[in-house]
Amino acid sequence: MGTLRRMASFDTIGLVGRVGNPMVVETVAAVAAYLNRAGVRTVVEDDTARMVADGALEAVPRERLGKDADLIIVVGGDGSILGVARDLAHTGVPVLGVNRGGLGFLADVSPDQIEPKIAAVLNGDFSLEAHFLLESKVVRDGVGIDGSAALNDVVVDAGTRSRMMDFELYVDGEFVYDQRSDGLIVSTPTGSTAYALSAGGPIMHPSLDAIVIVPMFPHTLTSRPLVVRGDAKLKIIVGASADAPELSCDSQVDISLRPDDEVRIEKYPHSLQLVYPRGHSFYESCRRKLDWASRLGRG
Amino acid sequence: MGTLRRMASFDTIGLVGRVGNPMVVETVAAVAAYLNRAGVRTVVEDDTARMVADGALEAVPRERLGKDADLIIVVGGDGSILGVARDLAHTGVPVLGVNRGGLGFLADVSPDQIEPKIAAVLNGDFSLEAHFLLESKVVRDGVGIDGSAALNDVVVDAGTRSRMMDFELYVDGEFVYDQRSDGLIVSTPTGSTAYALSAGGPIMHPSLDAIVIVPMFPHTLTSRPLVVRGDAKLKIIVGASADAPELSCDSQVDISLRPDDEVRIEKYPHSLQLVYPRGHSFYESCRRKLDWASRLGRG
Amino acid sequence: MGTLRRMASFDTIGLVGRVGNPMVVETVAAVAAYLNRAGVRTVVEDDTARMVADGALEAVPRERLGKDADLIIVVGGDGSILGVARDLAHTGVPVLGVNRGGLGFLADVSPDQIEPKIAAVLNGDFSLEAHFLLESKVVRDGVGIDGSAALNDVVVDAGTRSRMMDFELYVDGEFVYDQRSDGLIVSTPTGSTAYALSAGGPIMHPSLDAIVIVPMFPHTLTSRPLVVRGDAKLKIIVGASADAPELSCDSQVDISLRPDDEVRIEKYPHSLQLVYPRGHSFYESCRRKLDWASRLGRG
Amino acid sequence: MGTLRRMASFDTIGLVGRVGNPMVVETVAAVAAYLNRAGVRTVVEDDTARMVADGALEAVPRERLGKDADLIIVVGGDGSILGVARDLAHTGVPVLGVNRGGLGFLADVSPDQIEPKIAAVLNGDFSLEAHFLLESKVVRDGVGIDGSAALNDVVVDAGTRSRMMDFELYVDGEFVYDQRSDGLIVSTPTGSTAYALSAGGPIMHPSLDAIVIVPMFPHTLTSRPLVVRGDAKLKIIVGASADAPELSCDSQVDISLRPDDEVRIEKYPHSLQLVYPRGHSFYESCRRKLDWASRLGRG
Repeated sequence: MGTLRRMASFDTIGLVGRVGNPMVVETVAAVAAYLNRAGVRTVVEDDTARMVADGALEAVPRERLGKDADLIIVVGGDGSILGVARDLAHTGVPVLGVNRGGLGFLADVSPDQIEPKIAAVLNGDFSLEAHFLLESKVVRDGVGIDGSAALNDVVVDAGTRSRMMDFELYVDGEFVYDQRSDGLIVSTPTGSTAYALSAGGPIMHPSLDAIVIVPMFPHTLTSRPLVVRGDAKLKIIVGASADAPELSCDSQVDISLRPDDEVRIEKYPHSLQLVYPRGHSFYESCRRKLDWASRLGRG
Repeated sequence: MGTLRRMASFDTIGLVGRVGNPMVVETVAAVAAYLNRAGVRTVVEDDTARMVADGALEAVPRERLGKDADLIIVVGGDGSILGVARDLAHTGVPVLGVNRGGLGFLADVSPDQIEPKIAAVLNGDFSLEAHFLLESKVVRDGVGIDGSAALNDVVVDAGTRSRMMDFELYVDGEFVYDQRSDGLIVSTPTGSTAYALSAGGPIMHPSLDAIVIVPMFPHTLTSRPLVVRGDAKLKIIVGASADAPELSCDSQVDISLRPDDEVRIEKYPHSLQLVYPRGHSFYESCRRKLDWASRLGRG
Repeated sequence: MGTLRRMASFDTIGLVGRVGNPMVVETVAAVAAYLNRAGVRTVVEDDTARMVADGALEAVPRERLGKDADLIIVVGGDGSILGVARDLAHTGVPVLGVNRGGLGFLADVSPDQIEPKIAAVLNGDFSLEAHFLLESKVVRDGVGIDGSAALNDVVVDAGTRSRMMDFELYVDGEFVYDQRSDGLIVSTPTGSTAYALSAGGPIMHPSLDAIVIVPMFPHTLTSRPLVVRGDAKLKIIVGASADAPELSCDSQVDISLRPDDEVRIEKYPHSLQLVYPRGHSFYESCRRKLDWASRLGRG
Repeated sequence: MGTLRRMASFDTIGLVGRVGNPMVVETVAAVAAYLNRAGVRTVVEDDTARMVADGALEAVPRERLGKDADLIIVVGGDGSILGVARDLAHTGVPVLGVNRGGLGFLADVSPDQIEPKIAAVLNGDFSLEAHFLLESKVVRDGVGIDGSAALNDVVVDAGTRSRMMDFELYVDGEFVYDQRSDGLIVSTPTGSTAYALSAGGPIMHPSLDAIVIVPMFPHTLTSRPLVVRGDAKLKIIVGASADAPELSCDSQVDISLRPDDEVRIEKYPHSLQLVYPRGHSFYESCRRKLDWASRLGRG
């Protein structure tokens, strides 16, 4: 669950904000101002800089963030961190999430706590938690044609709603089942509190080295979520019946599929290094986000 | 559901409180004082009167309440109303529930609203909602040996935990299935937001004339909640495997079963007439009690 | 559950087959030949007649079937009956389903039993079971713009997969909840063993006068299937967030929706009159189709 | 999973049969006869020997099996292996399961295949799969008073049916939640296809190093199965409300609990070494036992 590290302060911090939200603009500006006062060099992703429209900010393209910065602060919410993870996890630069409103599972700093929390992080008072990603690849006629990484989940589905698809699932080369359903969600522990949870999957602790496979509205009542090892190699062969099957990564990247395509899913070689200010607890996030305290009026 | 009635004011009101809770004592006393001021004759169930220990109260046995009173006010919570329903539904006297703390599905008046809400009811400004009960009967060697009514649910289970039982289910004489499970919950719409809901049953609107049958941890993954008509006649035949099977009504009345016993369950001939002050909404109770507003941090 | 009727034999029988399946062609021809030998006038839906390509058959447009025939035999499967129900339920002409392969919930005659089963029906030895339909209507800016009937279910969803939508649900004018989810399934008892079951809804006996509302991957973990009365009037107001929301009837008719559209759903005025040869049992269909006999290897 | 091993043949084989089943007697006798013909020394657990009543068999107490034998063959079913695992896993002697009827997840040799399958195993043609156990300990007033190992699951529940209990759950010292429910199932991957599955838990591949925690009929609709690492240390503190709470290991060992008892659960230091003849596949067992092939009649 992450190790508490005391380290030399960060030299350069990259800043990314979710585009299109006025509250985010304000928070990005506040973070930049604080970092300026703290004497830390700050580079801002260019889309974000354009949104904030402050000429004093040093703007860099997103792909440069991983080279220039040794910490990336993302302002926006869990969704914003998904995109940064897919783009920048391979650089190994740690990421700190600042939420624009409430608190997320990944973005754990609230806007009203920017100063004390970032100060603590600059001071080395934080834990690093590695969140692994999945890598999906579409193989057509033996050739890899497309693919994407995903921090939460890879979804293969029938594309058109209320239509079903057939597919075969293999894990580590072993045939698991052929299934008729609306699709399949393949989720990391990080994604287990997102879409997979809505579909009936279990909650998995972020430190678990496991992947969960959750059928979407399966035609067989006996289909259940299946948890396999994190190093498992999955293969989904798309059947003939679907109209417009597709693959979706983190509900943000969509790839069209065809019958007989193979979708291969396995652990991505690089993990997202998430920075949590001291005091972070996954279970506390669950209690808050999943509202574990509310009770039925039974009896 | 229910019809809004403007009627002559009630002549005599019966008062029942949940025994053993100091907050209930206080609330019962407040209700009695208010009714006294309002000039309504009040009779108090004798256990309740003993608990309140106010010599001025007119105490009567519980079974007399149905004869003497034309409205019964129950102070305690949904659980207290279950008992009153089983004992007094057959008298047809309407029941108003006052909750001791939060609000329930059945007891819809909060302690801080006693005066305005009861005043409104005395004034005829309320709706009546009929909640049907189930009647269970145990037939052994062809002879009915025991049974009870239930407002929420009739549960047949293996008695000992973590042990399973086998049984056969018949509806209206038709064989439905034989099942191996921890037991079966047979619930009214009223009970559908209680134990049956925890076991995966659907929520049923109180006005629905239907019974839901929910398997408890079934051995077959294909067993699902089954909703049948309110006039259906159910028969459960207990199999040979259970150690100490039992029947439970509203989790308050327990009856020991034996292999080959038949449990017959059908609608009880009398409904509980529940009084709701104007403005009651079942869906509002759901939103409040089931916390329908809380959302996951998806995406 | 249907009444067993002894009635005068049918004068004219309409015949409809699922287009595009060679096994259906053969079965339609067999049914037509049998009816010819039995001396019953037979009219064949024109698409079906074209597929069978037998010049001796009397072809009529589908919409004429309801006028000319006093019994319609549908060869194909449950899916074929859905279409016939939407098109012809309003005529009140009873429908008998012949399955092309296995047995369905609706099409209960297997190809190898055509002669004895149809003979029994001609002889009056059958039961009639009324299955109600839902009627959906899209209201935009106060004007009804489109709609369809549905025997199984009306689905309102986000259109694009892995995307969510917001909407508000009202039942009989009462606000129920606003929900963020992939969509909502509104199902008849007939549809309760189809898509709604995959999504976690209960099984409802066909004779039940009730509608079940099943959320699809809801954002709130507290959302559960909700069963309301068959005469309930539902209204779903589409929120602003969905990309391309749509309404789907029986997964066969699709209608595009826009934010702020109202979808109104209520019971269709005409029921499908399904003919079942003597001996039909809904629970037997469940045991066979849902495989209620298979058991886990627990303990 | 597991590694295929070619090893020197076993010198002494221990034989255990499920007591009280005539089919088991026959199968045990057949196995013993085969081993005799194969020239392998066989020692038989004394209860089993008494049941078989063959004076030629060398009977030893169960606890001696682990010392005398270098392979233990269990005749009976998955349930019989649970007991042997708890008693003898600590010896490290591998176990081969022979099923008395169908096939189980653990007992993978059918009675009609005894000779070829055991011959293959004697010949070294098998894989070994390590299944970890849980160890539960009850701590009362700071003192460990009782406990047991479990191959499938440790269940803490309210004892009396249809009654709930309150408890607090801690994982690795972190507070997770307090819950009101019928109890909690804590399961290994091995147990994930048993009781935990009936209660809505996911299927976990046997090679996964993880524990799943499944609430039983929780009072909060937001409670979901939770998967944690295999090295997690769990603590359940029993609340005040339950009548007769109890702890149950593999549904075979029961221990009474009291309010304020702490139940500590963690991985048992010794794994069960299960012998599978070549060709065993966990997913094939799932397809067979969970009937993954059966499909709904949707549409």
